[in-house]
Parts: sequence; C-alpha cells; structure tokens
Amino acid sequence: MAQQHHEMTAGEVLSVYLQQQATDFLRSLRLHRESTTDAQGAEESLAAARSLRRAARRVGATLHTFRPLLDPEWTESLRPELAWLSGTLAREHAYAARLDRLLGALHRLSTPAPVPAPAAAVPAGGGRPTGRDEWTGAPAPGAGKPRAGQGAKKPSGPLAVGAAKAAALLERQLTLARTRAHSAALQAFGSSRFHAVADNVAVLASEVPLHPAPEADLKPLAAAAEAHLMEAVAALPLLRAGHPYNAEALVHGLAADTAPEAQDAPWLKVRSLLRLHRYAQEVLLGDAPPDARLLQAGQALDHHREAADAAAAAASAARTPRIAPATAYALGVLHADQRHEVEAARFAFQRAWLRETITT
Amino acid sequence: MAQQHHEMTAGEVLSVYLQQQATDFLRSLRLHRESTTDAQGAEESLAAARSLRRAARRVGATLHTFRPLLDPEWTESLRPELAWLSGTLAREHAYAARLDRLLGALHRLSTPAPVPAPAAAVPAGGGRPTGRDEWTGAPAPGAGKPRAGQGAKKPSGPLAVGAAKAAALLERQLTLARTRAHSAALQAFGSSRFHAVADNVAVLASEVPLHPAPEADLKPLAAAAEAHLMEAVAALPLLRAGHPYNAEALVHGLAADTAPEAQDAPWLKVRSLLRLHRYAQEVLLGDAPPDARLLQAGQALDHHREAADAAAAAASAARTPRIAPATAYALGVLHADQRHEVEAARFAFQRAWLRETITT
Repeated sequence: MAQQHHEMTAGEVLSVYLQQQATDFLRSLRLHRESTTDAQGAEESLAAARSLRRAARRVGATLHTFRPLLDPEWTESLRPELAWLSGTLAREHAYAARLDRLLGALHRLSTPAPVPAPAAAVPAGGGRPTGRDEWTGAPAPGAGKPRAGQGAKKPSGPLAVGAAKAAALLERQLTLARTRAHSAALQAFGSSRFHAVADNVAVLASEVPLHPAPEADLKPLAAAAEAHLMEAVAALPLLRAGHPYNAEALVHGLAADTAPEAQDAPWLKVRSLLRLHRYAQEVLLGDAPPDARLLQAGQALDHHREAADAAAAAASAARTPRIAPATAYALGVLHADQRHEVEAARFAFQRAWLRETITT
Repeated sequence: MAQQHHEMTAGEVLSVYLQQQATDFLRSLRLHRESTTDAQGAEESLAAARSLRRAARRVGATLHTFRPLLDPEWTESLRPELAWLSGTLAREHAYAARLDRLLGALHRLSTPAPVPAPAAAVPAGGGRPTGRDEWTGAPAPGAGKPRAGQGAKKPSGPLAVGAAKAAALLERQLTLARTRAHSAALQAFGSSRFHAVADNVAVLASEVPLHPAPEADLKPLAAAAEAHLMEAVAALPLLRAGHPYNAEALVHGLAADTAPEAQDAPWLKVRSLLRLHRYAQEVLLGDAPPDARLLQAGQALDHHREAADAAAAAASAARTPRIAPATAYALGVLHADQRHEVEAARFAFQRAWLRETITT
C-alpha cells in the first residue's frame, strides 16, 4: 500500500482514505438499522454504533487536518454535523462504560480480604500481627486501644452497606442518564439532520470533493498535526507524572470552587491531538500497522479520561440530597480511587511516551 | 571505635552500648522532669520524651536480641516494663502526629487549584479545555451536559464544607485521645511501677547484669536478628509493591468484615524486625555511621505505619453517628488518600530494599 501511495497524488491518497471511512460509516449504519431489539441484536447494534463512531471520528479528523486539500465550503458544513452525530452516539456508550467502571471499582473495594495464610515460622518473639511488640510480650503501643476515640465502634458493617448503597445510587443515576442518551440517539437517527449527514457521507463514498487548486501537500499538513501534539505534550507536567505516587491527581479534590478538571485539561487536549496525529498517519501510511507506542499512549489517555469522568460522577452522586453518611463515605473513597487511576494513567502515558522519544 | 570493639569481649561491647543507652534514658528523664509547662518547656518536654523512648526502645531491643548474654531473670523482668513505658509515652506523640498528618492531608486536598495560566498559543481548532471538540466548533461529547444526572448541582461547595467539618471532627476526636494519653503518661511518670523501671535502668547504667556463663557470641545473635528480618522481607509481596499504582493498599477498603489491617501486618512485622536488626548493628559497630539504605527502608515503613493508622482514624471518624454526608464524603476521600500513602510507602520500601540487595 505504501508503494501505491508513492505513485498517487495527495488528492488521490486522501480520497482513498476518506472513501474507505465513508464506506465503513454507511455499512455500520446499515447494520445498525438492521439490528433487531433482542439480546443479540442489541449487541450488534452497539457494535454497529461503535464502528459508526469510529468512522465518523476519522472522517471528521481528516476533514480537519487536511482541509486545505478539500472543498472548503463543503468541508466546513460537514464537520460540525459529524461531531454532533458522533457526540450523540458516544454519550450512551460513555454512561454505560462509566457505570461499569464504577461498579467494578466498588466491587474491588468491597470484596472481603482473603483469610490470611497461617503465619509462617515466626521468629521467637517476632512479629506485630498479634498486636504485640516484638521484643516483649506486652501489647504494642496503641494495640487494642480504641483509635481516635472511635475505634471501639467495630464492626465496620455500615461501610459495606455504604458501598452497596453507593452502587445502587450510581446505577440509578447513570442508568437514567444512559436511557436519556439512548432516546436522544434514537431520535437523532430518525431526524432529517441525520439523513443530511448520511447523504453527505454517501457523496464522500463515491467522490471526495477536493479543492480545485490545493496549495498544500499531505506531509506538511500531517507534520503540522504532529507539531501541535508535540507542543501540547511539552506543556504537560511529565516529570512529575513520572514520579509514582506524586498525589497530584487528587490535590484540590475537596476544594470549594475548583474541580480537578482544571488539571485534567492539558491531558485531554493531548488526547485529542494524539488522535488527530494518529488518523493523519493512517492517511499517509495506508494499511501499515499502527505505531504500538502511540496506541499505548493513546490508551493511557483514554483511561485518564474515563477515570476522570468516573471520579466526577462519584463526586456528583455524593451531592445527592439526603444520602446516608455511609453512602457518602463510600463515594468519597470511590472518588479518590478513580482520581488515583487518573494519576496512574498519567504515569502510564509518561512511560509510553518516553519510550517512544528514546527509541525513535 | 570498631578497632576498640575488636579487643573487647562480647559482654564488654554489650555493656558499653547498654550503659550508653541507659545514661541517655536517665538524662532524658531528668530533662523531662525539669521541663516547665510554658511553651518552650512543652517543646523541651516533648523532645525529652522522644529521646527517652528512643533509649527505651534500644535497651529493650538489645535485651531481646542478646538475651543469651545477659542475666536471664533480670532481663525477662525488665523487658515488658520498658515496653509498657515506651508504649505509654508513644501514644500521646502518635495521636498528635496522626492529627497533624490528617489535617495536613485535608489541607492539601482542599486547597483551591491555582488559576490556570493563560492558554499558550493553541493550535487552530486544537484543545479541549473549552469543552469543544478539536476538529469542529461543536461541543465535545458530554461537554456542558450534566454528568450522571447530577452534575447540574454545582457549585461543589458542600464538599469544602465537608473537609472543614471532617477536620473539626478529627481534631476533636484525636485531641481527646491525645489528652487522655497525656494524662496516662503523667500518671505513669508518677507511678511506683515507673520508679522501679527507672531504678533498673540506673542499675544498667552502672553495671550491666551479664550472664554468668554465656553460651553465645554477639555476631551469631546479631546474624539471627538479620535472618529473621530477611525471612519476613521474603514473605512481602515486593514484586507487586514495585509496580506503581497497583491499587493494592485500598483493596477491601469498603469490605464489611475485614479491615485493611490484615494486609498491613507483614509490613509492620518487617518494620519491627528491621529495627531489631538496626539496633543490633549499633551494638556491633559502635559509633559507625548507620547504613543509609536501612534507614531509608525503615523510614518508608514508619510512613507505612503512620499512614495506615491515619487511614484507620479517618474510617473510624466516619463511623461517628449523625455526621453530615459531606463530612463522611471528605473522610472517605481522606481514608483513600492515606491508603494510597500506604501503597506509596511500600513502593518506597521496595526501592530502598532492592538497591541494598543489588549493591551489597
């Protein structure tokens, strides 16, 4: 394919890519329409919506990155419509994934610890597991004493109840949000606005409207997309992200007026620019296998976004009026847990990115 | 000093060390008694209690590790008394340190985020900070939409109130616990039990009661202490601890019947055995500078213990009846934050320990 690319004009290469994506879009759309409402059909419908979004993202990104090569008026009118469509479709999926993530985390956090293995041969007098100091038979400092004046109130049953209640609350809220998103998506599919998008993509599938007199080439435009990415990565606090347990992601987590979203913005920006770069590479390289490190870095940023959204949903649920303290406590633990996943995602990105910089 | 050691018998080396520690103990005790109750005196009193504990720990550990070299009956009677004393003295300090740690964490978590710097030249159409997708002017998926059906309830003011209320609650509970510990310590200082300990330490300062016919030597006994440490370290999940963000420390954090303490036990045990090893090295090496890596590993385990206790105090405070949900939420975030410090301490220990193993 790369061979082929060399013999093609910029317009031809762009057309091949856009036509392929447009064809994928139309096929996914057909599959989506044909999928029935039984269990298997619902799964097919989800898969079709996913590949529809996948194609819409690529078409939109390509229209953006390579706009000087395309009919400007036509491009400018289609881009926002594609964004509207993929945004509408993405929402249902996002709520479902967020709920899965949060319930999974609650499950992980509230699974009882395994019964500890029988203590291995303990050195004479050794060990604190018994709450006794190792060099005497006397209770260790604080052992067996109520902690903070409240420790006597064991068992901690209420907290487990809190986890169950938090799960129920999140399920209720996110399922409602998902159902609304589903209705909105169905409504969108039936709208004349949607039919106009589909018609335009059908045009793209048969003949890409190129610029009559393009003043740019593929490579410099792709290079510009990469430069934007590099600039945004340079603005990231990568040094800090590379130090594990820097506790950065949770800072300000309990502040009054500021959400942690402010510190997330540069990462989300890099995520978007990384996608643009990846799709531009797809246009240039045709069917060549994607750069594994870019994929890894991109996955880390996907996790970043999902965890940040999940943390926000937990914080948001904690603001529900009249919830029990145990529910609020569980949501606080959950929020912090997800913010630490945000921090972990930054660490993973830093690792993936650094490896790339070193080896290329 | 190491030179000197070579020419001394085991009993002489042990006597030098124990006499030095006993002398420190008695001097600290005198300083503690002389310290007045004004602000400067309180500080001196704290410092004196700290060095008193420091000496008591070393005497107790040495009596334990090298017991075959010492008068058995005398040793067996003094060890639990020293443990009682240092335990009683440690409690007040521990509550104060725990409160400091928790208030510091709450402060860190509720400090408002700095106003973000003006966005650097953003590539045309780039960036998600505005909540808009980068390749269109349309709102990004989910941007500006209520999250989880609750996001519309901003501002998040209640959470900041929660942090303040959590701080007040912890301050109340831990100050009460500290005051009680202080009274207990004062009572202990005035007790005949304490005077008996002080008399015994005074005996130690003048002449160490050695075993009439010792059947062991210093080095094998110190080696046994080290072997116990190695055995306990071998039982630690160090591989896992070396993977940052393994989320191990918070797992089971919301479980009904199991506290995270079960997973902490092996680490606390290593902490105690590491101390025994360090003090045994002090006996052997005299005034030689301590092994920096052992110190680092020990500090990591001190942090482990402090963070674990702080996390437990936050969880315990969350079980206070009739607290507001916002308070409980803040305590949940705080608990998770401190459990992550536990995880960070394990990571730090793994790093310090591995470095040692490699270079020695």
